Amino acid sequence: MTTPIFILVDPQMGENIGATARAMMNCGITHLRLVNPRDGWPSEKAHAMSSGALDMMPPVTVFETVKDAIADCHTVYSTAALPRDMVKPIMTARAAAMDMQTRIKNNEKIAVLFGRERSGLSNEEIALSHTLISIPTNPDFSSLNLAQAALLVGYEYLMARYEGIANYTPTGKSFPAAQKDFDELMVRLETDLTAQKFFRVDEMKDQMMQNIRNLFTRAQPTDQEIKTFHGVISALIGKKIK
Amino acid sequence: MTTPIFILVDPQMGENIGATARAMMNCGITHLRLVNPRDGWPSEKAHAMSSGALDMMPPVTVFETVKDAIADCHTVYSTAALPRDMVKPIMTARAAAMDMQTRIKNNEKIAVLFGRERSGLSNEEIALSHTLISIPTNPDFSSLNLAQAALLVGYEYLMARYEGIANYTPTGKSFPAAQKDFDELMVRLETDLTAQKFFRVDEMKDQMMQNIRNLFTRAQPTDQEIKTFHGVISALIGKKIK
Repeated sequence: MTTPIFILVDPQMGENIGATARAMMNCGITHLRLVNPRDGWPSEKAHAMSSGALDMMPPVTVFETVKDAIADCHTVYSTAALPRDMVKPIMTARAAAMDMQTRIKNNEKIAVLFGRERSGLSNEEIALSHTLISIPTNPDFSSLNLAQAALLVGYEYLMARYEGIANYTPTGKSFPAAQKDFDELMVRLETDLTAQKFFRVDEMKDQMMQNIRNLFTRAQPTDQEIKTFHGVISALIGKKIK
Repeated sequence: MTTPIFILVDPQMGENIGATARAMMNCGITHLRLVNPRDGWPSEKAHAMSSGALDMMPPVTVFETVKDAIADCHTVYSTAALPRDMVKPIMTARAAAMDMQTRIKNNEKIAVLFGRERSGLSNEEIALSHTLISIPTNPDFSSLNLAQAALLVGYEYLMARYEGIANYTPTGKSFPAAQKDFDELMVRLETDLTAQKFFRVDEMKDQMMQNIRNLFTRAQPTDQEIKTFHGVISALIGKKIK
């Protein structure tokens, strides 16, 4: 198994199970187990809320106890606050995601427990887990529901696998202009601006052109945009001369 | 303003506005603007879905156009896919969060545009923004709703500000044991195990004790746990001897 298993303990409303499944699938997490769902399983309401996620997942499995649900797993995380006087590592969702990645690469089977909508997990259930996951939120308004908690844990897991590019500028069919073409545009602009008597004080010319050049380097125009801007200048001059 | 402003463009259902407000407040983001909400503003359904978030925020402001809504902002991000033939930077939500942090420290006012529930943002609206935000999701099931998208962008913003500890083990009233106390437990265990003839082959003794010591160092017991374990050994010996 290449992703963690999410386990919902005593979930009450089918809607919450469905919304959680949708959040999981958005993050590529496909294994859902339920402990003792109040309204039974399967659930029409869950299916409706899952936006098709439940149909794409392997069948959800149902257990009577948390112990049964985690029996085949090697490492168990709980999304819960640490009870007083328990000694157990706490990781942010981000740190836990890195930890899960490492363990899954090592062929461990990983489970994440999510507690009851209102009362969370019992101390006995928390004691079964190796690590607690803490999701940083606003200390003045901390009100994550089940599906939101699953989304954030799942998202961090996805991001820990993510090898995409964090920041780039696609240029479609065009391509960032070669520097000689860029420079040609700048020289042409300077020539035309001089002809149009843009530079009233000659000593300021270099400084002003440097500023203009900086503006254009920040934009890093493409070939196509260089052509377009030549057209813009021609049009503007035409207008003025006319 | 120390956080970004979230702007919902033509939001349809009040419930979605409320769920978005709740997601925002979880991340400490308090400024919400609406462009042209279909069912008007204020909205009872939005208030009910916000779990109190809307009551904690400064009043939501309503605008007729995106241009009006962003007029006082310096940098505008759009949560949208890049239209063909537009040249604009794309950042992951995580990279965008770092970028927002930097700009906000520089006193810029930052806006994030979220599009219509079904049809997203128009090309004209996207063209008004400086940067597109891409939220990595499962390529086979990418189905984030408005509030989920707001939660993930907000969460990354919160995490970019987060200075908490990623991974630690609180020990409550107790404290990780001093090495002399730990060593005393190991020596006592070895003595008792020897007396109980645990080490059948004498040459293996050092190796086995090293393995046992490694198990206990991984757990890094507290003072209290060292005491408890002395008690466990005494009890076990008592039982055996009896």
